[in-house]
Amino acid sequence: MKNSSFQEIILKLQDFWASHGCLITQPYYTQVGAGTMNPATFLRVLGPEPWNVAYVEPSVRPDDGRYGENPNRFQLHTQYQVILKPDPGNPQELYLESLKALGIDPRQHDIRFVEDNWEQPAISAWGLGWEVWLDGQEITQFTYFQQMGGVALDPVSVEITYGLERILIALNNAKAIWNEEYGAGVTYGEIRRQEEFEHSKYYFETADVERVRAMYDLFSAEADACLAQGLIVPAHDYVLKCSHCFNILDTRGAISVAERQAFFRRIRELAKGVAVAYGEQRKGLEYPLLKNAEGKMQKAESKPSVHSAFIIQNSAFLLEIGVEELPANDVDTAHALLSARVPTLLNELNLAHGAVRIFTTPRRIVVSIDSLAPNQPDREDLVKGPPADKAFDKDGKPTQAALGFAKKNNLDPATLEAREIDGGKYVAAVVKQKGRPTPEVLVDALPRLVESIKFEKSMRWNDSGIAFSRPIRWYVALLGDMVIPFEYAGVASGNISRGLRPYGSPDITIPSADKYFDVIREAGILLDKEERKASIVEQVNQAASLVGGEAIIEEGLLNEVTNLIEMPTAVMGGFNEEFLSLPRDVLISVMKKHQRYFPVQRVGATLQAGPGNESGKASSQSGPSPDRGGSPLLAKFIAIRNGDDIGVNTVREGNEHVLGARFADANFFVREDVKLKLEEYRPQLSKLTFHIKLGSMLDKSERIEKSVNELIPMLKLENNEAIFARRAAHLMKADLATQMVTEMTSLQGIIGGEYALRSGEQKNVAAAISEQYQAVPKSKIGLAVALADRLDSLVGLFAAGLAPTGAKDPFGLRRAAIGVVQPLIEHDVDFDLAEAVKKSAKTQPIEVKDDVQKQILEFITGRLKVVLNDMGYKYDVVDAVLAAQSNNPAGTVRAVKQLQAWTERDDWSSILDGFARCVRITRDQKETFKIKEKSLREVEETMLYEVFNLQPTTFNGSVDALLNVVVKLIPSITSFFEKILVMAEEKEVRENRLGLLQRIASLANGVADLSKLEGF
Amino acid sequence: MKNSSFQEIILKLQDFWASHGCLITQPYYTQVGAGTMNPATFLRVLGPEPWNVAYVEPSVRPDDGRYGENPNRFQLHTQYQVILKPDPGNPQELYLESLKALGIDPRQHDIRFVEDNWEQPAISAWGLGWEVWLDGQEITQFTYFQQMGGVALDPVSVEITYGLERILIALNNAKAIWNEEYGAGVTYGEIRRQEEFEHSKYYFETADVERVRAMYDLFSAEADACLAQGLIVPAHDYVLKCSHCFNILDTRGAISVAERQAFFRRIRELAKGVAVAYGEQRKGLEYPLLKNAEGKMQKAESKPSVHSAFIIQNSAFLLEIGVEELPANDVDTAHALLSARVPTLLNELNLAHGAVRIFTTPRRIVVSIDSLAPNQPDREDLVKGPPADKAFDKDGKPTQAALGFAKKNNLDPATLEAREIDGGKYVAAVVKQKGRPTPEVLVDALPRLVESIKFEKSMRWNDSGIAFSRPIRWYVALLGDMVIPFEYAGVASGNISRGLRPYGSPDITIPSADKYFDVIREAGILLDKEERKASIVEQVNQAASLVGGEAIIEEGLLNEVTNLIEMPTAVMGGFNEEFLSLPRDVLISVMKKHQRYFPVQRVGATLQAGPGNESGKASSQSGPSPDRGGSPLLAKFIAIRNGDDIGVNTVREGNEHVLGARFADANFFVREDVKLKLEEYRPQLSKLTFHIKLGSMLDKSERIEKSVNELIPMLKLENNEAIFARRAAHLMKADLATQMVTEMTSLQGIIGGEYALRSGEQKNVAAAISEQYQAVPKSKIGLAVALADRLDSLVGLFAAGLAPTGAKDPFGLRRAAIGVVQPLIEHDVDFDLAEAVKKSAKTQPIEVKDDVQKQILEFITGRLKVVLNDMGYKYDVVDAVLAAQSNNPAGTVRAVKQLQAWTERDDWSSILDGFARCVRITRDQKETFKIKEKSLREVEETMLYEVFNLQPTTFNGSVDALLNVVVKLIPSITSFFEKILVMAEEKEVRENRLGLLQRIASLANGVADLSKLEGF
Repeated sequence: MKNSSFQEIILKLQDFWASHGCLITQPYYTQVGAGTMNPATFLRVLGPEPWNVAYVEPSVRPDDGRYGENPNRFQLHTQYQVILKPDPGNPQELYLESLKALGIDPRQHDIRFVEDNWEQPAISAWGLGWEVWLDGQEITQFTYFQQMGGVALDPVSVEITYGLERILIALNNAKAIWNEEYGAGVTYGEIRRQEEFEHSKYYFETADVERVRAMYDLFSAEADACLAQGLIVPAHDYVLKCSHCFNILDTRGAISVAERQAFFRRIRELAKGVAVAYGEQRKGLEYPLLKNAEGKMQKAESKPSVHSAFIIQNSAFLLEIGVEELPANDVDTAHALLSARVPTLLNELNLAHGAVRIFTTPRRIVVSIDSLAPNQPDREDLVKGPPADKAFDKDGKPTQAALGFAKKNNLDPATLEAREIDGGKYVAAVVKQKGRPTPEVLVDALPRLVESIKFEKSMRWNDSGIAFSRPIRWYVALLGDMVIPFEYAGVASGNISRGLRPYGSPDITIPSADKYFDVIREAGILLDKEERKASIVEQVNQAASLVGGEAIIEEGLLNEVTNLIEMPTAVMGGFNEEFLSLPRDVLISVMKKHQRYFPVQRVGATLQAGPGNESGKASSQSGPSPDRGGSPLLAKFIAIRNGDDIGVNTVREGNEHVLGARFADANFFVREDVKLKLEEYRPQLSKLTFHIKLGSMLDKSERIEKSVNELIPMLKLENNEAIFARRAAHLMKADLATQMVTEMTSLQGIIGGEYALRSGEQKNVAAAISEQYQAVPKSKIGLAVALADRLDSLVGLFAAGLAPTGAKDPFGLRRAAIGVVQPLIEHDVDFDLAEAVKKSAKTQPIEVKDDVQKQILEFITGRLKVVLNDMGYKYDVVDAVLAAQSNNPAGTVRAVKQLQAWTERDDWSSILDGFARCVRITRDQKETFKIKEKSLREVEETMLYEVFNLQPTTFNGSVDALLNVVVKLIPSITSFFEKILVMAEEKEVRENRLGLLQRIASLANGVADLSKLEGF
Repeated sequence: MKNSSFQEIILKLQDFWASHGCLITQPYYTQVGAGTMNPATFLRVLGPEPWNVAYVEPSVRPDDGRYGENPNRFQLHTQYQVILKPDPGNPQELYLESLKALGIDPRQHDIRFVEDNWEQPAISAWGLGWEVWLDGQEITQFTYFQQMGGVALDPVSVEITYGLERILIALNNAKAIWNEEYGAGVTYGEIRRQEEFEHSKYYFETADVERVRAMYDLFSAEADACLAQGLIVPAHDYVLKCSHCFNILDTRGAISVAERQAFFRRIRELAKGVAVAYGEQRKGLEYPLLKNAEGKMQKAESKPSVHSAFIIQNSAFLLEIGVEELPANDVDTAHALLSARVPTLLNELNLAHGAVRIFTTPRRIVVSIDSLAPNQPDREDLVKGPPADKAFDKDGKPTQAALGFAKKNNLDPATLEAREIDGGKYVAAVVKQKGRPTPEVLVDALPRLVESIKFEKSMRWNDSGIAFSRPIRWYVALLGDMVIPFEYAGVASGNISRGLRPYGSPDITIPSADKYFDVIREAGILLDKEERKASIVEQVNQAASLVGGEAIIEEGLLNEVTNLIEMPTAVMGGFNEEFLSLPRDVLISVMKKHQRYFPVQRVGATLQAGPGNESGKASSQSGPSPDRGGSPLLAKFIAIRNGDDIGVNTVREGNEHVLGARFADANFFVREDVKLKLEEYRPQLSKLTFHIKLGSMLDKSERIEKSVNELIPMLKLENNEAIFARRAAHLMKADLATQMVTEMTSLQGIIGGEYALRSGEQKNVAAAISEQYQAVPKSKIGLAVALADRLDSLVGLFAAGLAPTGAKDPFGLRRAAIGVVQPLIEHDVDFDLAEAVKKSAKTQPIEVKDDVQKQILEFITGRLKVVLNDMGYKYDVVDAVLAAQSNNPAGTVRAVKQLQAWTERDDWSSILDGFARCVRITRDQKETFKIKEKSLREVEETMLYEVFNLQPTTFNGSVDALLNVVVKLIPSITSFFEKILVMAEEKEVRENRLGLLQRIASLANGVADLSKLEGF
């Protein structure tokens, strides 16, 4: 096929959308980050008027500048923006048709609608939809706008934003945009590459921060002035200019976290002002475009009815809710919800039924019932009326109350009689109810069933105003071969399903409920999630073994991928081996998080953890590449395509291109970053706010350094370890100021370790830095710095009044607390948390009162309990130990472990019982009694006393030590209680005996509160 | 025909130009005043690389904002920009084809290429070309760029800039853009009108001057920073932003004249910096697009040759130079130049010839020679050699000098002989030259003839590098029926002419020179300017009489219109009568200057001059409308179309639309302006610089007020007049701050008078204001203020060292000086200029020394002399009077007039002679002698003395008075000289006689220096 040119694509899209009733307008005359900001979108999506428009928008995003070196990323890219308002009902299909008009045949590619929750806080806007992927490349954003400028949208607009450069690359199967034709025989590169370089340089290096700040202030003041005069578009222009200034400043790295919020707040206020004013203006004009518009979509005229005469026997039932691509999580949500809901519903409806099965895929939610009764059974219900003494007067005649009850239940008052109900006498009525035919019942129930499916985030799309995860486009509702007619969310039920997206979603007629599964399977759709998952695993493993590798199949990714497709086909691709010099975590993170690929590693040769352990691979100029573990990666990946293997080479090449571009991007950041040593980034932390009351990240970093100094003796670090720990603490947060971490936050720490090595730091130091965010740092040095960091967060934020409340934990303090106890447990290091909290408190810029410190320790204990429970220990055992000791998690675990073993002993009940007797008889005493040997009257008590005196009485938290003592005491205790009356009449004798038992009971103090145990 | 939509036009143009090899790109992402500023034009026209591009450009011109009320004028209009580089050879034809693609049939319209010398000093750019008019409406700018950013362009680019709104209006025959479809059933007004209002309000009222100035400074500093880093496009972006800021400030009226220059200078420097840097960058890249380009246009291979064997008798000769539309002046220039040049050339070529006729039209320059000899006659020329004594040695042998001469002239040295030439002896040679055949001669001569046609402004267009007024596209060169082949400016001659532009310029074969005129006439072309002119006059008069009016045919306009067309057809249209309430001068000025229409006035009813004289017409809310004279206008105009009367209704409607829009614009200004009283504009004069050394226009205005106070007694104004004059002086310059005058500077004063009336000023005051720029103000009040103004300019600017030098008179001081003397003459008011200059000098902010004052008076005298000569007085008479008196022009004129009358008397010579004798004999005396009566010896001298004593001796400049005295003295003078020896030996007697004659001679002092007269 002849290659396309950039201008051909544009002209074709313009023709396509013009012929589909869109207005074709022009790009905006000031720099915008996206076509969304053009008033033809930002303003026109507001309010009730219809609006269909399409236009090109060269979009400027300074921080995407790559000096013209990245094949996919540019400070200026060209969007083609389409707005359809209201939703035409088939926007995905229209969009796919437009791709065909460009020459993109869905059968030859992998086109995917990948969940994307679009949000732009700077203009108080959000919507739900997808990124559209073409062979792994995001080529379009497809969004149902829900809100813009703080205004809820009604109707909702569909926004389709094509990325034209990427489409051209894909169409021409090109490596990069630069050598592709723009038009008239001139390449895109000729037209834009030099300029791309210049603008990148300008935004990253040249733009004068003070001047751009000054521009921002001027623009923002002009925006205010315009708003004050009701000049909406001029005001909007200045909002855009503000926004562009902000982007420049951000690219220059001149915006601190705190400032960012202030900028956003300011721009958001302005954008809201513009949106609200526009809304009022259009209202004042009485919505001129509304007058032109044809009548709104017709509502389904009347309530659907059904003739149920022919359903006389049990039939299979099938409900398929056809949707636009659901987010992966929502596929699971719907499944779980319906699995619980449907059986309950059937019981409520009193419908006898066979097996209920629920299936969910990205495009359908299916309820299948093997066999459903043709109608509800007839019912007799006893209805309770007023008490008998209130129902009849002294003459035995029904009172007004009884008459009312009779009337309400349609009974002859004469038939009322009193019955015994719930131990009282009441009048009652037996109400007979004829069972309704199942189809009738379903007509009412199905809409409510669909309505009951709730998602974390949902959206509106048409004038039904109903919200769902994504738009519902069809229902199949069959009882046997009979359509159960209903309407919900503007969609009516029928017997037409749709096929696979890559096949063009052809209509599929479902002849009857029981034929559904065959027809769907025939259409290539794997309805059952487990089946899809198994197929993926098999294909992925097979593909990996073809190249002598093994796939890294992480469960979360596998589950997500399974929920993204209806027919999995594995496609393996490769990338340039030079990228293998990037940190392994970067490679994996890009493949998994960005592309949903399964990485492939060499079989066997597992590496040890830690940046210090170089893999021995040839490392090019980009320096040594530490790995956190795992085998070395192969330069391969496995993608899962939705559909069969037609055009699979195109799909592979497309995916390879995308991944190459992403890796090139990572390379760009790394290359830029390593121009400075890691240490040189540290001062820039002063620009990152940790928390307004607690100072910058640099302040935090300095506190951590102090804290580590205190922890070194507590953790008994050796000399070298101490030196390394101090150095690691100094550098550990510096990577937050690098571009790579700014770009891929999840790699913080990892990148720090990597850059530490490249800056010539000791490998132990680098390892500690890279371990700081790990749940359990491997090295003791890593442990020290991680503890210091986590304790600092806990102590500081609690003191600032930011303890988690309810479900809210914005600073992740629960995770921090677990991050304190878990490593101490796994390293089995004894550690005094109370002391550590106290020392951290002294480094804080604000006071940390004693009660707050106590609160912190309790919070940590709470997490420790969760950890212990998660480890499988019995609740009572955990509670028993925690009641006595919790400030040294390692010790606590040892104690729990021992105690649990004791509780599993055969003789445990006698041990516990013996000890318990000592505890029970003494625990209400308000006084602790002294033992006077002269008052020991009986031999049994003397014996117990003597045996007791032979035993140690402190156990350093060890349950074993405690209980071994107890075991030794048990015979004497037993004899004691057999022979001795503790509560002797003589006060002195009595108190002496209680004192002895108190001494025994108190042995467990600081070890475990055995009274918490079962059987105590 | 179905109406077009805005987006259809754009899509059609994109298809058209894409299919003609143009790159289609996008509008720029920052506000630009025109598509020219988009780098796709501004940068790409630089350097040698080919470039063909087309794009839409929404162009922002703040001061064109009209709040959405004008049908044709908007702060944002949409350009469609095409760049063709190099010139494809037929850009006009391509353009006309594109119009056809839009549905504009040239046969149904009047499409005209109207001279436009495009210049943009702010970016140091210029080019020549046309506005293209469609039925009187400018719809396109068509320019051959010659320079951009200070860089001369090679090759030249053709720029075609369509005005899309106007094209849509024309296509749909609409009244305004607002109700036309933009696309998808939505009107243009719906999309843009509210925004147009808001932006107009922003630019005119809301934009904060200080903030926008601050933006300008920031942008300009960023531009510098970018340039310093070699970041060309980012620098250019900031230049554009600077430019937009400037436009905003200008629209807010915040830029003084002096500042404007500074802004321009700054922007120009930046633009040049960008252009130069871009040139270097492309050079450094070795001009990548040049490599792609096909080979440059082939040069005509070899020198054309001609077989002349068959020309044996006299034949008619015809040369037609076919050009793209010439400017009207150039049509005349070519005519004048060739009328002089061709006969001379024929003589130089020694070709016998019959009558030579020259014809010029906008599209052709024609040389016709009735009859041309078939060849030059043979010739014998005598060639002068060295002097005889240098040519032969003493032996008579030829010297080296002689031998060299012989060799040079191809002679046998032996034949050399000496001849008498010019009174000396020289060797000479008779050189025989065979006459060459005429065709051969013409092949050489015709290119030089074309080359010799020089214009005031000329341009290059193709790689011949040759400059002409506009591109040459063909030659017809015929001697009889033989083509004289030559090539010049990349065009080769032939026998194909082209027909009328409205007929599509069809090829027309010219069979032979003598058939040319018939063929051309048959094609509808009126070659003869006088014939075209006569036809226009006839048609215009006829049209006017149809509506009972008479056309106002001004010669300059008639001449211009005649030069704009090849086939005149008058089209009469009308306009809304409500516009008749606009000032008459505004109406006429718009019709004549902007549209080249002939206005029509009512027959008869001539009005008196002056704003005070209300015309009695119904005046709507816009107030009374004063007229400067002439009959009341009818709401009609007459346009001259190029072509026949097909589609004449369309043409009329189009022209009516345009004129209506222009009048609406004038109405807009007037309505805006009259929101303030005239007096309220006066303070704004402080923002207009008069001259840097002389302060603002407000300063000038204040000086004028002082000056008028001094002039009031000098001009003997009466009480009321004095009051009015002071008021008029106070207000007279205020209109310079109004929008109407800013827009149509030629109406300054007129507008002031108009607004004065509307502000409730006395009508005498208004009249004086409106008269201030008239050569001769009608009223004495007008005279007073005009004199004060003009004297102020003369005195101030002379003192500032800005007296005119040579041909340069940038401040129009010659006109000012004439403006001083002429009114004094016509009002016949005695006035002491020396006194007036002295008083004006005292008001100036800088010192005006005595010698400068003298210089000023001499300068005025110089102008007075010109005026007097122009009045038809004899030079000697004028000189005689001016030698004696010049500081009172009215008196001077009276004196000149009287003296001229005296010189025409029969007895003049005797009068002059008598007086002259007295003068001549005394004029060399260094001493003035006293007369002692006792020394009067003879009766004749006594008598003369006595007669003399009876006469008055001062005449207040009156020649009549003087000469009447002289006449009385003549008999005595005659007797005196007959009888008396003046130079008597006795000193006392001699001195007494000389003294007497001195007294007589001195009678003429202060009246006239009669010695300057002929015959003295």
